[in-house]
Amino acid sequence: MEILDGKKAAQAIKDELKMEVAQLAVEGKKIPHLAAILVGNNGASETYVAAKVKACDEVGFKSTLVRFEADIPSVKLLEKVQELNNDPDVDGILVQLPLPKHIRERDVIDAIDPDKDVDGFHPVNIGKMLQGLPSFVPATPHGIMLLLEHFKVETKGKHAVVVGRSNIVGRPMSILLSSNSNPGNCTVTICHSHTQNLKELCLQADIIVAALGKPEFVTADMVKEGAVVVDVGITRLEDSTRKSGFKLKGDVQFDTVAPKCSWITPVPGGVGPMTIAALMKNTFVSCKMKN
Amino acid sequence: MEILDGKKAAQAIKDELKMEVAQLAVEGKKIPHLAAILVGNNGASETYVAAKVKACDEVGFKSTLVRFEADIPSVKLLEKVQELNNDPDVDGILVQLPLPKHIRERDVIDAIDPDKDVDGFHPVNIGKMLQGLPSFVPATPHGIMLLLEHFKVETKGKHAVVVGRSNIVGRPMSILLSSNSNPGNCTVTICHSHTQNLKELCLQADIIVAALGKPEFVTADMVKEGAVVVDVGITRLEDSTRKSGFKLKGDVQFDTVAPKCSWITPVPGGVGPMTIAALMKNTFVSCKMKN
Repeated sequence: MEILDGKKAAQAIKDELKMEVAQLAVEGKKIPHLAAILVGNNGASETYVAAKVKACDEVGFKSTLVRFEADIPSVKLLEKVQELNNDPDVDGILVQLPLPKHIRERDVIDAIDPDKDVDGFHPVNIGKMLQGLPSFVPATPHGIMLLLEHFKVETKGKHAVVVGRSNIVGRPMSILLSSNSNPGNCTVTICHSHTQNLKELCLQADIIVAALGKPEFVTADMVKEGAVVVDVGITRLEDSTRKSGFKLKGDVQFDTVAPKCSWITPVPGGVGPMTIAALMKNTFVSCKMKN
Repeated sequence: MEILDGKKAAQAIKDELKMEVAQLAVEGKKIPHLAAILVGNNGASETYVAAKVKACDEVGFKSTLVRFEADIPSVKLLEKVQELNNDPDVDGILVQLPLPKHIRERDVIDAIDPDKDVDGFHPVNIGKMLQGLPSFVPATPHGIMLLLEHFKVETKGKHAVVVGRSNIVGRPMSILLSSNSNPGNCTVTICHSHTQNLKELCLQADIIVAALGKPEFVTADMVKEGAVVVDVGITRLEDSTRKSGFKLKGDVQFDTVAPKCSWITPVPGGVGPMTIAALMKNTFVSCKMKN
């Protein structure tokens, strides 16, 4: 069993980006600039945004963090998105989700210029991805593809089972893995809450992508010997023995599943860091497109 | 075994549309108007466009057929699309594919106003479909969903195997069938040229959608007793005994497969008429949205 070490792969991607940014600077060209919007003070969101800003610093991107109180009127948020759309220095715009209930997330995402939508949530980018056209691919699925690529995991002709049909992970994963690309060219089965024989299907899988958000849902009896397991889940469970007050759990019961795997992602340190690396990569591409 | 009779279901949809159009007329409202563009004189394309214009007549829509020679410059075609985009009387724009090789189909499709893209090929519509938002769904997959709905075929929790990953059929089918909707909520496996164990996978399927464009590819030994089989293939094979000079073959070997099925579509008379009915429905919806 080998670890799909997201920290290591993400570091390699960031190191490469850092060199490319340095090169841009040498040539007197524009440096990539990511603008992040954070509404309210949800603990997990604070952590994620802080990690993204830190990654920008690491690779030499410019970053702007725009903070709003949780009760900001929707129209104010949309105005800020418009302002960032119009700012030629900004290459990527990221609105940290979830947003407070009084704001329609859809309206905010749709307001982002598709050419700056480095999270890849705008319908134009989703549509282009499905059609195999160049686009910003959502950061988590993109990160998983980069992870498979980094560790040269063979995917062609393999049977991948994706558990979960969310717009931001499960669906794009099923498209990317089944695309005529490398990594890709998998036969893909997409499963969800109405799937009747999930265990049998998972047992057929050469690759399992668990993205349903239920801690330790995938157990050893669901996994074939030699399978590749990618764990997208990241749930905070209370843990009073820890300083932070919580521990992170994936969707896979790591200790029992890992011994059966050829490759497996840990949680944390698997998909999480790759999501951020993918976001950096998207922002870099956005900057390059404009220069 | 029962026939998923596309002619009958399409007629029912058209009858309903006809009544709704008559109602619009009574209320003095705008009548739906479909504009079709045909470039060159490919035999199959001529047939398809003629059938679409005829369907418009049947339901009481206005239709405009714009014909161009095969050597029309790309820019002229794009100008016409723009003109139709700007024409407030036109609700739906359809460019019959394939286009001559010197024209980039992608550019033409992307030029169509997404709100008039009744073929559902624009990235915005594809992206919205994937995200479960209201959109124009490509006519063939939409027609298949309407067919399943018409005959009340149970799909929830069923395992559907889609053979073929084209942008216009296989991919959207896999999304629609796995969506949280009715019909829908299937576990979906998408197969393609790199799939290694296609026969085994098809044998697991409660529903098979064959959309690979290889005549009689799906044979009886690939189909489980009681399966629902939807045949999207329509290949013209030369046949000198026929007046037309050709016969139409689906992707399914109908005679041997049909006895094993609970439901099966014939070719012709299955998916084909539903594609046109779905196009009419999309055009109607487009008109309603503007009134």
